[in-house]
Amino acid sequence: MIRAGVVGGTGYTGVELLRILALHTEVEVAVVTSRADAGTRVDAVYPSLRGMIDAMFSVPELESLATCDVVFFATPNGTAMLMAEGLLARGVKVIDLSADFRIKDASEWSAWYGMEHACPELIAEAVYGLPELNRDAIKSAQLIACPGCYPTAVQLGFLPLIEAGLIDTDFLIADVKSGVSGAGRKAELATLMSETGESFKAYAVKGHRHLPEISQGLTMIAGKPVGLTFVPHLTPMIRGIHATLYARLNDTKGGSSTLAELQVLYEARYVQEFFVDVLPQGVHPDTRNVRGSNNCQMSIFQPQGSETLVILSVIDNLVKGAAGQAVQNMNLMFGFKEEAGLKVIALYP
Amino acid sequence: MIRAGVVGGTGYTGVELLRILALHTEVEVAVVTSRADAGTRVDAVYPSLRGMIDAMFSVPELESLATCDVVFFATPNGTAMLMAEGLLARGVKVIDLSADFRIKDASEWSAWYGMEHACPELIAEAVYGLPELNRDAIKSAQLIACPGCYPTAVQLGFLPLIEAGLIDTDFLIADVKSGVSGAGRKAELATLMSETGESFKAYAVKGHRHLPEISQGLTMIAGKPVGLTFVPHLTPMIRGIHATLYARLNDTKGGSSTLAELQVLYEARYVQEFFVDVLPQGVHPDTRNVRGSNNCQMSIFQPQGSETLVILSVIDNLVKGAAGQAVQNMNLMFGFKEEAGLKVIALYP
Amino acid sequence: MIRAGVVGGTGYTGVELLRILALHTEVEVAVVTSRADAGTRVDAVYPSLRGMIDAMFSVPELESLATCDVVFFATPNGTAMLMAEGLLARGVKVIDLSADFRIKDASEWSAWYGMEHACPELIAEAVYGLPELNRDAIKSAQLIACPGCYPTAVQLGFLPLIEAGLIDTDFLIADVKSGVSGAGRKAELATLMSETGESFKAYAVKGHRHLPEISQGLTMIAGKPVGLTFVPHLTPMIRGIHATLYARLNDTKGGSSTLAELQVLYEARYVQEFFVDVLPQGVHPDTRNVRGSNNCQMSIFQPQGSETLVILSVIDNLVKGAAGQAVQNMNLMFGFKEEAGLKVIALYP
Amino acid sequence: MIRAGVVGGTGYTGVELLRILALHTEVEVAVVTSRADAGTRVDAVYPSLRGMIDAMFSVPELESLATCDVVFFATPNGTAMLMAEGLLARGVKVIDLSADFRIKDASEWSAWYGMEHACPELIAEAVYGLPELNRDAIKSAQLIACPGCYPTAVQLGFLPLIEAGLIDTDFLIADVKSGVSGAGRKAELATLMSETGESFKAYAVKGHRHLPEISQGLTMIAGKPVGLTFVPHLTPMIRGIHATLYARLNDTKGGSSTLAELQVLYEARYVQEFFVDVLPQGVHPDTRNVRGSNNCQMSIFQPQGSETLVILSVIDNLVKGAAGQAVQNMNLMFGFKEEAGLKVIALYP
Repeated sequence: MIRAGVVGGTGYTGVELLRILALHTEVEVAVVTSRADAGTRVDAVYPSLRGMIDAMFSVPELESLATCDVVFFATPNGTAMLMAEGLLARGVKVIDLSADFRIKDASEWSAWYGMEHACPELIAEAVYGLPELNRDAIKSAQLIACPGCYPTAVQLGFLPLIEAGLIDTDFLIADVKSGVSGAGRKAELATLMSETGESFKAYAVKGHRHLPEISQGLTMIAGKPVGLTFVPHLTPMIRGIHATLYARLNDTKGGSSTLAELQVLYEARYVQEFFVDVLPQGVHPDTRNVRGSNNCQMSIFQPQGSETLVILSVIDNLVKGAAGQAVQNMNLMFGFKEEAGLKVIALYP
Repeated sequence: MIRAGVVGGTGYTGVELLRILALHTEVEVAVVTSRADAGTRVDAVYPSLRGMIDAMFSVPELESLATCDVVFFATPNGTAMLMAEGLLARGVKVIDLSADFRIKDASEWSAWYGMEHACPELIAEAVYGLPELNRDAIKSAQLIACPGCYPTAVQLGFLPLIEAGLIDTDFLIADVKSGVSGAGRKAELATLMSETGESFKAYAVKGHRHLPEISQGLTMIAGKPVGLTFVPHLTPMIRGIHATLYARLNDTKGGSSTLAELQVLYEARYVQEFFVDVLPQGVHPDTRNVRGSNNCQMSIFQPQGSETLVILSVIDNLVKGAAGQAVQNMNLMFGFKEEAGLKVIALYP
Repeated sequence: MIRAGVVGGTGYTGVELLRILALHTEVEVAVVTSRADAGTRVDAVYPSLRGMIDAMFSVPELESLATCDVVFFATPNGTAMLMAEGLLARGVKVIDLSADFRIKDASEWSAWYGMEHACPELIAEAVYGLPELNRDAIKSAQLIACPGCYPTAVQLGFLPLIEAGLIDTDFLIADVKSGVSGAGRKAELATLMSETGESFKAYAVKGHRHLPEISQGLTMIAGKPVGLTFVPHLTPMIRGIHATLYARLNDTKGGSSTLAELQVLYEARYVQEFFVDVLPQGVHPDTRNVRGSNNCQMSIFQPQGSETLVILSVIDNLVKGAAGQAVQNMNLMFGFKEEAGLKVIALYP
Repeated sequence: MIRAGVVGGTGYTGVELLRILALHTEVEVAVVTSRADAGTRVDAVYPSLRGMIDAMFSVPELESLATCDVVFFATPNGTAMLMAEGLLARGVKVIDLSADFRIKDASEWSAWYGMEHACPELIAEAVYGLPELNRDAIKSAQLIACPGCYPTAVQLGFLPLIEAGLIDTDFLIADVKSGVSGAGRKAELATLMSETGESFKAYAVKGHRHLPEISQGLTMIAGKPVGLTFVPHLTPMIRGIHATLYARLNDTKGGSSTLAELQVLYEARYVQEFFVDVLPQGVHPDTRNVRGSNNCQMSIFQPQGSETLVILSVIDNLVKGAAGQAVQNMNLMFGFKEEAGLKVIALYP
């Protein structure tokens, strides 16, 4: 039984962490912080947790957090980088669900996130927490940078093709659709039900903060810079991400690939992965089939037998795209079963 | 480890049973039947169950079902009454999620359900599976009639007031709203997204089949016939029932009751119940806070201090209103912990 | 062609007014104010109006507004009462969509709205703008207090029964469900899609500001104080109000009424009304059938032949419940056809 | 005043036609047919039309339809081709909203639609009813093949770039998202609210029937065969299509284009079009802003200044994607103002 702290417990990724950790048999939720709600019972803010979490929100303080074995940051960008160093110095493992440690180039990070990085010396040490790519490094990490929701769905989808060197990485397209919970639990006009219900739109087409993160990840896999067009969309539902990925088979290795071979490639790449599920050929994934679960379901198509491949990849943005993946990382870091606390079935319908 | 059979595994209550039973540590899902999908893998119809249920749909047959310790009927009305007798004779416990054994008066049942009852002699033996009311009888029952979704929310809401004799039972009003999954998984115009999305309506105001069931239940609690107006509504969401109940304090015992006393009454009545949660005074329940869980959350109000009380009671229609309550009954019948397999947290947001 | 001003053009009732007025052949939208968006083109904030409104938001000022023939206030409560007097003095007719002039008793208004009334001397002069009740007074009014959305649906539903003296007005119940646009266009946690989507709840059960307004209206119709329990709910859709009303036939005149007679009563009461539509017996109204239109559709039921009647009444909260009714009032005040600019068909599906 | 007939009045495109035609001042709705609902009042099936359409559904018969000046087919594929010839022979203009006359190659049509074409000799005569492309031909046409919903959004989006010869037409991508009303008003499991609500998925990735229609259209514009990957998706809302289009600037003419020039190109191409609206640079279209209207709103982006362009194009699938465009064609054929009956404002919120 380890002691866990959750900093920023009142956002959607925070409460999702609590939902998962409360039933995790190896973890005690010891500290839950929230500046705004300090002194309030957690289950007064979240009645869904009544009877499951017996805790109060407290102000985030190094002393109390340092009593934990692991601290999760479910905070807005710019908070974890202020506290991580102190916790690591006290021997506490840190799992950051925000973007503070995702981008290896501090100046690029600053350009996209609009602030100086407070702790650039830790960036190199941080392990990018995508277990399907970095499992070994995660096991021995002290500081994890959990991937963003879009980057998780997109990277898992492209991974087998890029690793196998089959596609032209100069011209990748990721058309991705997200439920509105991805925008967080903030009082904003743009995510009111009256503004987002019954409507569909793209946003941030000029450039979204997840673009450099995805590019960095795909570049690392490819071993060379990639050309990516990434268009995020808002779809009128609460949870779920659906990535529709387009890539062209290259002339060198890709040209002769058949769809059957590509299917085998995907299945082989993920056969050992508990949370990545390659669907049978011809089946389309649906976000509802992973809602509330840590699963990524995907499939690969080659419409009309052309050279352009279509990969479909779905996750729950709050689970595999955030809190679930964070717990998966924690399980690896502490030697628990990787699926501990995460063996749940999606809520259908 | 007991062997369970699910008859009618392709409706929403059927797949919800599978979602719960697949993770229940005391149960093996041994048989899942569906005439329409016999020969198909369960997870081909329900990709959410991939990796969790390794079974095929089979044709419902007494021989295979009789190898189970318990058989659930998640079938349309009129099926369980044809097979229950044979299973009971073979020593198999039967839990019926349909309406076949809910109404004690067979002719009234026929009038509402439009068919002769095929097995009236079993009706008396059937125990109405509302654990908060009938726990002891359930423990020793061989045949359970699981309550309907509306009846569960309404009866739990009125229960403490009627038991305490505080309200005028001649004039009860239950204004209840349901998500569309309550209409089942059937190809019908009326429950298309284009017909039910972004719209709200009442239906069956002249008389809904759950009216005699609720009346029978409240009559039993009151010890005398009750007068109930029940209006069901369809609300544009998938899961959830919200009952808004109105009752007038009577002149005899009710008149002097204060809201504080009523709050105490409710809390005391349900303090031992794992799945019924009386919210603090002034808090409104919200269906999202029980979505996917077996919980009923409720609260009691006395607007403007008048003699008319308002009780709010919410459940997930597919869990506490169907599959979850069925498993709760099974747990009682087999001596498992009552919350076994049901200790989950609602999916918020 | 008259000149109209809209104060508070950036809320949902404001933009709905613009949607209606832009196509009204007797009206020119001359001034649209918004402190927050002053200097911005209206269609930059509302791209749905591109090509239809060629105007900029301006700061609200008496001078410019006084050039109008009529000024609508689509403002938060507490604004119209500051400006109405000045406009009326300049001969401008005022139609207030907020609550400032709805309650005849200024101290009761203060108690519910939490502020002193800035202009109590105008309250008596204000005509309550429910045309089906007050048509003649509206025609000659200078100042209109437009009814709230809930009060419109509830009063129209109860009206025929109370006028005819058939029901016990001591025990009226209004269980009303609203889409989230009723909460307005404000950055608030509670109306985020992630908070209100896929969920249903009651709110303000202890007392909602529309309670005194409805009670005042019903009292005026009944000629004596009424006892009303009013429970508002939030339903996961954007537009629409569904009122489910309960009333008991009284012993004096109501007792012998048959449902057929009640149907005749309703049809007779509203046969001349362009915007109130009594559905054939047995048909349930559905909010989608009035979405975007100024119609109220309703029906009356007598479940199980009991003495408790059920009336169902639906409107679009932003049209008949706000902007449409305001324009209907304007039409009456200026002698236009009552349905001018309002002859549209609901958007189904 | 012309007489119009609507064959197949009980689908969503049929009722949408009625919604538009009922208020069209140049048109009398003379005949509305439906085999299933013959003998029923139209407004009994569609209460939204009460007071607006005084008609009964009749069986489709040449004699009665031949009394009309124009007949719309809002029927499943395969019906219009059986009746068009007879009507044309009687001098009745025919506007087909189904796919019967969209594909110029009858054998390709048969391959995609799974039936022999009953009337191949009329295909050549049929004019493809996309006014922004074929206005002159439409004006003198007797038979119009209305474009599909996806093809309308996609072709309007690509049109300026292809006409100007700026992009590599061998590698076009159309990632398109549709509301569920596009699936029609049919009792089907797949479009139940419980199946499509709160979920997002792609479908028919291997090949959708709108692919040959779009390819044919783009090929005609380009003057040579194009390579198109088209992926349709279902998004949890009722109305609306959002096309996200990807194209690469070619080396010949496209290479030196700046975004500002492309913006000018789009604005110039559509400046005369009443129903196509190019948004200011940097603004994202949102389907809600065209809901219920005949508008197409679009914008063009060049993310990160790369050679890959992104065009966003939104329509209401039932209006500009079906019934509205059909009426726009009718207006052209009969010499009415092109926007007659179609000058409405989108329903926001």
